[in-house]
Amino acid sequence: MKRLDIFGALKKDMDLIEKELYRSIEGGDSELVETSLHLLKAGGKRLRPVFVLMGGKFGNYDIEKLKHIAVPLELIHSASLVHDDVIDNADMRRGKPTVKAKWDNRIAMYTGDYIYGKALEMTTALSNPEIHQILSKAMVEMTIGEMEQIRDFFNVEQDVRRYLLRIRRKTSLLIAVSCQLGALAADADRQKAAAMYRFGYNVGMAFQIQDDLLDVCGTEKQIGKQPGSDIRQGNISLPVIFALQDARTREPLLQEIEQIHKQDGQGDVSTAISLIRGSQGIQQSEELASRYIAKAIQALDHLPDIRTKKHLKDIAHFVTKRSY
Amino acid sequence: MKRLDIFGALKKDMDLIEKELYRSIEGGDSELVETSLHLLKAGGKRLRPVFVLMGGKFGNYDIEKLKHIAVPLELIHSASLVHDDVIDNADMRRGKPTVKAKWDNRIAMYTGDYIYGKALEMTTALSNPEIHQILSKAMVEMTIGEMEQIRDFFNVEQDVRRYLLRIRRKTSLLIAVSCQLGALAADADRQKAAAMYRFGYNVGMAFQIQDDLLDVCGTEKQIGKQPGSDIRQGNISLPVIFALQDARTREPLLQEIEQIHKQDGQGDVSTAISLIRGSQGIQQSEELASRYIAKAIQALDHLPDIRTKKHLKDIAHFVTKRSY
Repeated sequence: MKRLDIFGALKKDMDLIEKELYRSIEGGDSELVETSLHLLKAGGKRLRPVFVLMGGKFGNYDIEKLKHIAVPLELIHSASLVHDDVIDNADMRRGKPTVKAKWDNRIAMYTGDYIYGKALEMTTALSNPEIHQILSKAMVEMTIGEMEQIRDFFNVEQDVRRYLLRIRRKTSLLIAVSCQLGALAADADRQKAAAMYRFGYNVGMAFQIQDDLLDVCGTEKQIGKQPGSDIRQGNISLPVIFALQDARTREPLLQEIEQIHKQDGQGDVSTAISLIRGSQGIQQSEELASRYIAKAIQALDHLPDIRTKKHLKDIAHFVTKRSY
Repeated sequence: MKRLDIFGALKKDMDLIEKELYRSIEGGDSELVETSLHLLKAGGKRLRPVFVLMGGKFGNYDIEKLKHIAVPLELIHSASLVHDDVIDNADMRRGKPTVKAKWDNRIAMYTGDYIYGKALEMTTALSNPEIHQILSKAMVEMTIGEMEQIRDFFNVEQDVRRYLLRIRRKTSLLIAVSCQLGALAADADRQKAAAMYRFGYNVGMAFQIQDDLLDVCGTEKQIGKQPGSDIRQGNISLPVIFALQDARTREPLLQEIEQIHKQDGQGDVSTAISLIRGSQGIQQSEELASRYIAKAIQALDHLPDIRTKKHLKDIAHFVTKRSY
């Protein structure tokens, strides 16, 4: 998913956000600034800032206000990624070496802590306590989601509901909150902010399912890291859960997962990936992602017909466009 | 240093803070609540909450307001400790197994992130933006200090100034801010808040020097972990810097540190400890700690003669009372 192509109208402001992102982590220890910049410059879709700005379009759009939400949200997301890379022992992200690979685990941990602190520092420019509450709650929930994920590593008995609860916390809430806070910071009325929240929540769910599908079906070039990294580290994602419900696939896939578990992330995952690809899991996951997208688009019914609404629809459709 | 003996007047409110601390991390994933409680219940001097409440005594003391500062400050401190234990590969703290030892590094990382988030969540009850700014800046500086510490591991060329800058960020600022924010949250005037800041800053410096001395001169029973853990992990603390300036000690100590470095924390540190203990480093460190205490007590001149001022003096003297 390329970054800004579909956001022509917001391009100028997103360029400003990009600059503010880099500026936001200045002023610290030179090595922390370097590691943080490495992380931020490695790219990313900037989905959260984009949604903040789009949420703002439903109120009194003011980029000077919105940036104090858009930048911290991307920072919080980035900080969580750098900590995840330590947990996942990941060497590559978005086609570039991770902080933990280029430096080490200790530096990656403090880079995350530093960026969290900088995010918090930037939000203090906003005086609305509700915004702080929503943001801090989302941070807590996100960490709970990450924790649930590591606890569920190699848990082959988990069901779809458990997976959905986990990605809700891990991914969707922060995206939902991005949409909502953009609207709230622009003083949009509560119904609009709530509709944006529902939109973001459902897009976020679809987005994470799609991300998990890509890890199974994508190429290394597409996803910027080796495919199969989820199953290698024991992350039982939706296609795997569905594949395990598929009578033809269940037993051989269980055996493969057990082997992968025993080899502690060092073994070959290609058989497991083939089994998942050949199962009903792919189609079922795609269908579920599509249902979330339909719900996201439904949520837009409660919003006025401005150009941004059309763009939000485009993004929603874009998220589930197959790129594998 | 025992916890509440000298704070008789504040005992009831500190009991309330203790309960609020435990309550503050509820509501999340059960394992994160368990690891967080393990960390919080392992104790600690609760120096930061005590200073918040004492700062509040110079204004309109209201425990219901002050707790929203006292609890987050202790949470931020605790979160930093759990992350430090990962970095330092520490198995014991305060005589109890660390989160990383009882669970693992991954869980310790998310426990820290969770507690940071919960701290942030609790401060949102306060509407004063200045308080948020001061707090978030202190968090950022603390992380920079931690980072400087790991970069200076086994750097035997560092001087006293570099050490002091590092502990300023790592320890003193958060203590200074505790004193200051207590006063500010109680609407004490700015001079009083500034005097409290200076008091906390200087006490914090003395406190860290004392902590570093204890690691060299204390017994395992006194410090709740094996002595010599600083030098084992390469943390060149003040007594070591002074010992390296001592012509009689320098060469043999350099050799010992090189050996420790080579053995990657697994070797014997007893010779190094003996060398430091036998050097001028102990007395010079004690003298510097005393000078900070004198400055802390001087800062109190700008505060009215209420009973709390006497207690602050007692704490200051207590910090440098030798317990080895």
